[in-house]
Amino acid sequence: MAKIAPISGFPEHLPAAYLVEQELIEILRHTFMLHGYVGIETRAVEPLLQLLAKGETSKEVYLLNRLQDEGNAPKADNSRLGLHFDLTVPFARYVLENAGHLQFPFKRYQIQKVWRGERPQEGRFREFIQADIDVVGRDVLPAHYEVELPLVMADAFTKMSKLGVPPIKILVNNRKLSQGFYQGLGLTDIDAVLRCIDKLDKIGAEAVIELLGKEAGATPQQAQACIEMASINGNVEALAEAQAVAAKYQADSELFQEGLAQLQQLCVAAQARNPGVVEIDLKIARGLDYYTGSVYETVLVGHEDLGSICSGGRYDKLASDGKVSYPGVGMSVGVSRLVARLLKAGILGMSRPSPAAVLVAVTSEDNRAVSEQVAATLRAKDIPTEVAPTAAKYGKQIQYAEKRGIPFVFFPPDDEVTDSRVKDIRSGTQITTTAQEWEPPADDLWPQLVTNV
Amino acid sequence: MAKIAPISGFPEHLPAAYLVEQELIEILRHTFMLHGYVGIETRAVEPLLQLLAKGETSKEVYLLNRLQDEGNAPKADNSRLGLHFDLTVPFARYVLENAGHLQFPFKRYQIQKVWRGERPQEGRFREFIQADIDVVGRDVLPAHYEVELPLVMADAFTKMSKLGVPPIKILVNNRKLSQGFYQGLGLTDIDAVLRCIDKLDKIGAEAVIELLGKEAGATPQQAQACIEMASINGNVEALAEAQAVAAKYQADSELFQEGLAQLQQLCVAAQARNPGVVEIDLKIARGLDYYTGSVYETVLVGHEDLGSICSGGRYDKLASDGKVSYPGVGMSVGVSRLVARLLKAGILGMSRPSPAAVLVAVTSEDNRAVSEQVAATLRAKDIPTEVAPTAAKYGKQIQYAEKRGIPFVFFPPDDEVTDSRVKDIRSGTQITTTAQEWEPPADDLWPQLVTNV
Repeated sequence: MAKIAPISGFPEHLPAAYLVEQELIEILRHTFMLHGYVGIETRAVEPLLQLLAKGETSKEVYLLNRLQDEGNAPKADNSRLGLHFDLTVPFARYVLENAGHLQFPFKRYQIQKVWRGERPQEGRFREFIQADIDVVGRDVLPAHYEVELPLVMADAFTKMSKLGVPPIKILVNNRKLSQGFYQGLGLTDIDAVLRCIDKLDKIGAEAVIELLGKEAGATPQQAQACIEMASINGNVEALAEAQAVAAKYQADSELFQEGLAQLQQLCVAAQARNPGVVEIDLKIARGLDYYTGSVYETVLVGHEDLGSICSGGRYDKLASDGKVSYPGVGMSVGVSRLVARLLKAGILGMSRPSPAAVLVAVTSEDNRAVSEQVAATLRAKDIPTEVAPTAAKYGKQIQYAEKRGIPFVFFPPDDEVTDSRVKDIRSGTQITTTAQEWEPPADDLWPQLVTNV
Repeated sequence: MAKIAPISGFPEHLPAAYLVEQELIEILRHTFMLHGYVGIETRAVEPLLQLLAKGETSKEVYLLNRLQDEGNAPKADNSRLGLHFDLTVPFARYVLENAGHLQFPFKRYQIQKVWRGERPQEGRFREFIQADIDVVGRDVLPAHYEVELPLVMADAFTKMSKLGVPPIKILVNNRKLSQGFYQGLGLTDIDAVLRCIDKLDKIGAEAVIELLGKEAGATPQQAQACIEMASINGNVEALAEAQAVAAKYQADSELFQEGLAQLQQLCVAAQARNPGVVEIDLKIARGLDYYTGSVYETVLVGHEDLGSICSGGRYDKLASDGKVSYPGVGMSVGVSRLVARLLKAGILGMSRPSPAAVLVAVTSEDNRAVSEQVAATLRAKDIPTEVAPTAAKYGKQIQYAEKRGIPFVFFPPDDEVTDSRVKDIRSGTQITTTAQEWEPPADDLWPQLVTNV
């Protein structure tokens, strides 16, 4: 076998960490379903042309080649396949492909791996899990879904916070507000302005002002106005500031007011349904040019350095077959990044790595069937159960359980004792019982998420 | 957006079918955990050299190239990555890479997609889901795990059969028995014999006899003996026939007897723990040359044309770091193939495609917050709930529920009625109730698997 070494950017977990990831995914999935979102999964590959249509990310795509095609002339671009780099592009394609079989508005969740052909680099994943929700309408999509999405995510994270995950803040803006303001200022290359503003946190105001001049043709006064607007944040009252800045620069517009009203609607509803979780932040721009309304980013409080762990927004033109368009709104959780941090910071762990709550000891290899029968009885009661690997001395069998975090050992009758017994190997307490009778305390039945590990 | 068409070999499901798949995966996962198997997930990629080490399948590998490397000279083979084509090779690598952090015997389950770069062909998947269990020991692995594995799988399929999935038969053989017999006959190229015997079902005895002569250098009498042995099947009594055939051809050996004894142990235990599910079939050879003991195939009764839906066996040399070897035994369910058949034959479906049990009607857009409050109350009781997309006439809102299979509609108080009501839209029955009070019958709470759809 070839030399074994991890591959940079392709993280893998040991069993306990995998369980943590699964538990968080289960919370997301359950919350999405509780809000009526339908699950789908798309194939891992898309035609290269479809992947490239989104621009920007073209360099990050992994192309597939069949090994037996090696050496043949490269195939035409329109028949080449690549691994998807997000779940939005495949979802848009899925909607178009299956429109006749879906009910609109179509609310779907999707939790899958995605791949990005990045250069290997510290902290950058090339394979990671995303958990997305999107709602798409046929031709129209009411704005209240732009309110709903961040609140569904907030619901999931509120559940996680009860298990020890730090709270989140969902930062919101509206493209219409930003675009309306920039246009009101007389700027024309809105995408360029958005790209510059997107860098505000990273490079600071002065550098962005310079960049706005260079990349978006902004005068120093226009650039200053952009910075002033983008620096506004807080609760719903921050919108009055935005009004004032727009008035000051005479950059008000219908589009600006539309965005402002939608942002207000979102903040008011969020304040009623999950107070404090949603915050206005007018520098949120999201690089992707397909957003047309609300845009979202999410920080884990105390872990802001991690960047956004759940982002998205409203898009109107991502999916269209020429006749019908499917406007949508979506948010995507970066599950792998979130989990990696929670594990690394010791915030979450599992109560034990093994699913088994009890190990059934084996008195002798000839009597293995007796232990198997005990295990079958316990499993029929939905108690996760292992049978000892060998009829070693009890001390060694107990050690087997200990090493795996299995809390109980069940001893069938043996040469010396005619009753069966269960020992809690953490406390040493032993009781006489039967397989029919015994069950573990509910907290010990399955491995559980634990905090501060 | 580029033209939309399915890609041959990369199946995707509509939402209800996806739910069916998820339910079956959940049964497998739950059963595996109930038997103490620890979950892991490996990255989708392995070094090409690792993938090719297994032989045979080399032509089916998908290679990855970063788009931005296009046009550069091809990389050296030892740095190239390919998508895994099964979960056994990645698991063996994972064990070697993490041996210091794992407890042995290590019992793990793994449910993931795998990819094979096959030529597009009817009924052949190029992307599909496998659900594997394996037990690996350090240096040694007791034979009783070869008994355990098929019984864990039988347990999972017994649960499925209660939901309408046809019963299975697990067909078992032992490489030692076959190899001991072939060697006893004087044959030397055992792998070649196994490959020939593997084709018995497909091409028939006569063609296999010819093939054995050509590919394994067998005399007509040796070939005849091979066919006689391979044709033996049935319950534990079939082993007496095997004894007789070995005696007849004076091809008995220690290895043969060892295999026979293990097979007998397996059959006796299986008969005690899950009667009728395991059957001896001495033509089971499994093409892969790494099997060294028990080998398994599984047919879905009444769907034998599907081929084996769950296969595997004992292997002793798959994972070794030169100093330590990790013998194992594994079985793998072809989830996608199984699900595709169950769906196509109308054996399984879902009671509804939407997770929501209830739709909360909206009396007017101004009162949407009232409906949202009702939904929040219901969700707090873990009742999956949607809110109507628009404040359309009630008839239209009911239609929204109907189209998605949502069984109940909740009407908050409106201009005409001061109480809230819930309507079962299947029966038309309507009751006066409150969000605090109401809950759906348990059977309607979540979508359920239904049979004969």
